[in-house]
Amino acid sequence: MNLSPLQKARYEYTPKLPGMLRSGIAEICVAEGSETSSVADQEKIRELFPNTYGKKEITFKKGQNTSTPKKQVVGVILSGGQAPGGHNVVCGLYDALKATDKDNVLYGFKNGPSGLIDDDYLIFDDSYIDQYRNTGGFDIIGSGRTKLETQEQFAIAAEVCKKHGITAIVIIGGDDSNTNAAVLAEYFAAHNTGVQVIGCPKTIDGDLKNDDIECSFGFDTATKTYSELIGNIERDANSAKKYWHFVKVMGRSASHVALECALETQPNICLISEEVAAKKMSLSQIADQIADSVEKRAANGMNFGVAIIPEGVVEFVPEFSALIAEINELLAGSKADTFNALPNWKEKYAFIESGLSKESMAVFAILPETIQQQLFLERDPHGNVQVSLIESEKLFSALVKDNLAQRKAAGTYTGKFNPLHHFFGYEGRCAFPSNFDADYCYSLGYNAFMLIQYGYNGYLSKVSNLSKPADEWVAGGMPITKMMNIERRHGEDKPVIRKALVELDGKPFKFFEANRDTWAVETAYTYPGAIQYYGPAAVCDLTTRTLALEKGE
Amino acid sequence: MNLSPLQKARYEYTPKLPGMLRSGIAEICVAEGSETSSVADQEKIRELFPNTYGKKEITFKKGQNTSTPKKQVVGVILSGGQAPGGHNVVCGLYDALKATDKDNVLYGFKNGPSGLIDDDYLIFDDSYIDQYRNTGGFDIIGSGRTKLETQEQFAIAAEVCKKHGITAIVIIGGDDSNTNAAVLAEYFAAHNTGVQVIGCPKTIDGDLKNDDIECSFGFDTATKTYSELIGNIERDANSAKKYWHFVKVMGRSASHVALECALETQPNICLISEEVAAKKMSLSQIADQIADSVEKRAANGMNFGVAIIPEGVVEFVPEFSALIAEINELLAGSKADTFNALPNWKEKYAFIESGLSKESMAVFAILPETIQQQLFLERDPHGNVQVSLIESEKLFSALVKDNLAQRKAAGTYTGKFNPLHHFFGYEGRCAFPSNFDADYCYSLGYNAFMLIQYGYNGYLSKVSNLSKPADEWVAGGMPITKMMNIERRHGEDKPVIRKALVELDGKPFKFFEANRDTWAVETAYTYPGAIQYYGPAAVCDLTTRTLALEKGE
Repeated sequence: MNLSPLQKARYEYTPKLPGMLRSGIAEICVAEGSETSSVADQEKIRELFPNTYGKKEITFKKGQNTSTPKKQVVGVILSGGQAPGGHNVVCGLYDALKATDKDNVLYGFKNGPSGLIDDDYLIFDDSYIDQYRNTGGFDIIGSGRTKLETQEQFAIAAEVCKKHGITAIVIIGGDDSNTNAAVLAEYFAAHNTGVQVIGCPKTIDGDLKNDDIECSFGFDTATKTYSELIGNIERDANSAKKYWHFVKVMGRSASHVALECALETQPNICLISEEVAAKKMSLSQIADQIADSVEKRAANGMNFGVAIIPEGVVEFVPEFSALIAEINELLAGSKADTFNALPNWKEKYAFIESGLSKESMAVFAILPETIQQQLFLERDPHGNVQVSLIESEKLFSALVKDNLAQRKAAGTYTGKFNPLHHFFGYEGRCAFPSNFDADYCYSLGYNAFMLIQYGYNGYLSKVSNLSKPADEWVAGGMPITKMMNIERRHGEDKPVIRKALVELDGKPFKFFEANRDTWAVETAYTYPGAIQYYGPAAVCDLTTRTLALEKGE
Repeated sequence: MNLSPLQKARYEYTPKLPGMLRSGIAEICVAEGSETSSVADQEKIRELFPNTYGKKEITFKKGQNTSTPKKQVVGVILSGGQAPGGHNVVCGLYDALKATDKDNVLYGFKNGPSGLIDDDYLIFDDSYIDQYRNTGGFDIIGSGRTKLETQEQFAIAAEVCKKHGITAIVIIGGDDSNTNAAVLAEYFAAHNTGVQVIGCPKTIDGDLKNDDIECSFGFDTATKTYSELIGNIERDANSAKKYWHFVKVMGRSASHVALECALETQPNICLISEEVAAKKMSLSQIADQIADSVEKRAANGMNFGVAIIPEGVVEFVPEFSALIAEINELLAGSKADTFNALPNWKEKYAFIESGLSKESMAVFAILPETIQQQLFLERDPHGNVQVSLIESEKLFSALVKDNLAQRKAAGTYTGKFNPLHHFFGYEGRCAFPSNFDADYCYSLGYNAFMLIQYGYNGYLSKVSNLSKPADEWVAGGMPITKMMNIERRHGEDKPVIRKALVELDGKPFKFFEANRDTWAVETAYTYPGAIQYYGPAAVCDLTTRTLALEKGE
């Protein structure tokens, strides 16, 4: 294996634990807090989780360890999309487990939750785990998107646990995976398996957070990586002075990533999907807003700029969602065959025109032809439009171009508009974790083992006070059910962890809102540069602007 | 201005000078070497540069400064595309100029060479220049692509210099800009203006190098930034285990960037344009080579991979260049109107089929339809195909997909192939310069002033021995004409600096060639991570693998 100099150096890094976990396993005791209730739909959630609902929040403190000695055999699972720091969760878990008793065993189930069902695993030892300390990626055991949600799966999982003598499962995942962890925990309790389940909050999207969970891991590193690139592009724009860069960033449902990148880099434009939905904005309104910035900057001689577009924004535009629904209806079943048989785009267009409502046709008509064709020609196996394939960065730059042509005709705009496009997603999900994520993740894993050792089930590993230095962090746990409510999913009422969207009255958005008119016109770019792992603390230990603002800092 | 923590920290960085420049201006003396001759076409070049040809190479040494005291008024110009470190060239130049005599003056001509012609400038002072130390971008004075090459332009330049009492011009640019610097130097000498011209070797493409110039500045930082992202993508590929990533990197004519990134990250595939041209490879051959890797990896259960594609590679495929030439001919003049009047793609396709040669039609036929349409529908103002717009990463993934379908039909391949696409260019041109580029650029600028002070004209600032620590670097200068030969450009014989392509018998390519078959099948990825400016020297001070291999290290 050919290791990079940074990878070798990162092996030497010692992640920082919260102060109360630093005195060694023998000196960690539990303080129980109040009983909890779910954020909404308390009766229904209680009914669905009779064995795990309403348990107490707990905090770890320095003090004599009073847990019952017991050989622990723990299984760990990485679930869903990669997030920087996942390896350190496993390392922290392993270190706490081995420090408690060197005969304890850690299983890693391979390639996501399916590894548990398929009984596909490895057993960690020092030499294996040491290769992954403070590194990015989920390649330590692989990840996967299989969902653990059926009774049949749970029964198999119980069998596999029994076979290996597993005492606890740690699931590292996002909101869906932790919802499933809670259901599995309840199943294990109801069936007296004796197996505990602990979740860890992972997702670069930043949408798994609430009053208890300050942030999910990976969000810090991923947004720092995207912000590095956006800052570099801003500097390029401000040097060449001739391009408008449209930068799409990951985030299908929530715009936390886009907002954090905007707070870090101060671009001319940043769309926020939650605002688009709340204000019921149309495509034209959004394009008009961007074109305003282009026009004002051009009037000051600046025919360049940077706009951040969240990946999922078009799905939040009401008129666009309506159009998609109509297209799906228009091509449902055998109607698609009629459409496909038409010999050319002109005839297809006529078919579309006669099939869409007047309102949706008006929306369709303003789209660039490449996107019009994509909506009709690239459909999923069920015949539905593949909204995730829509290149929204190109869509908006095309709409802005049309808008500017009108302004040019009207004589209000005389500038030049040369757009370039970028999409950043895979570039940040497997970066070496920042010091923050390396520390946070290691602490989450270490802490998860302490929750196991003290016998908790259906809990989320919780580390808070994260905007402060690590020694002031607070470690503990809370019942996953506390974060749940009932939502309609696929026609059924389901208990789920509520996804955290960008709050339009929250401090991060408010700060953005208060500054964006200035940023739209001036060149107020900030250049964060690459993530630093060494050097001054201000450069390498600070976490996100989002968290700092939320904490009022 | 809202400065990032890294930007603030980088202001405190002191760039390292070569040892012989470290004792202060009073202790820098000159050692003259042998007279030089151009790399080829000596007689013609001598004839074209009667006043500046054949001058001696020079090296600076520690010893008493014997230059003639003279008030220096220097103008500096940034030319062409951004490259990390440009600001430090200006800072080094400014510091040497002010250290020699605080009454010396540095002009910055704005937005490229046109600033000199338009007399558009600023005058540097400490507070202005301090904002740009060790930062990326060319925003200190802006850059531009105007070429200084006509006698009229030179006459205006001479006037502007006379008006301000300018004694020397420093041009920071690539091969073309330094060619023009040499011509300007000759003009100034022939017309006894007394104005000197010094060039500095800039380009992220890495194609301005030769026996004298070990590398151009910016190549180190840009390739490290791209390699960071490619490494992150490799780790993502190896975690998710379900995507093939096709990554295009900048480099229209030479593949140094692609090769350096491959040496840093060890991907499964990296195309090298120079090899494609030398072996006269066809599109199908290239696709077949990539598909071999996909098939072999799939046979080992690995339905994922990473391929690096140099931006300009399709232009090096002989059959593709022939196709482009035929298309340009087919649509020349009024023939385009006939084509455009055809009502749909089907009829257009028939027109194309009847107009292309059998060989070119065979090439055209295998292209994905989006690229077929692009070749005919998006043409430049002269009606020519815009080769630079061709998304070669998508072209090759589509050809590979077709190739794999044949293998599937033949029963040799049973895997899955899900391609994703990326293009990295603007992301790296304005990064904060690595310590190497910060040091190298500052040294180039400082050294450029010493060449001015000692009266040299038509010289390139030269710093060598770059794979060693900075105190062992060697500072000096060489006549730009030494790098020149005669090439045919736009139907005329022109004296130009020879562009350095990847040498297929050079050590970097040989190393790649010796390893690529293994990399194609195994997962031998290396993850470089983000550029580090602090921390262990192995992590933050090493320059490129290309240079290390060239130096036999």
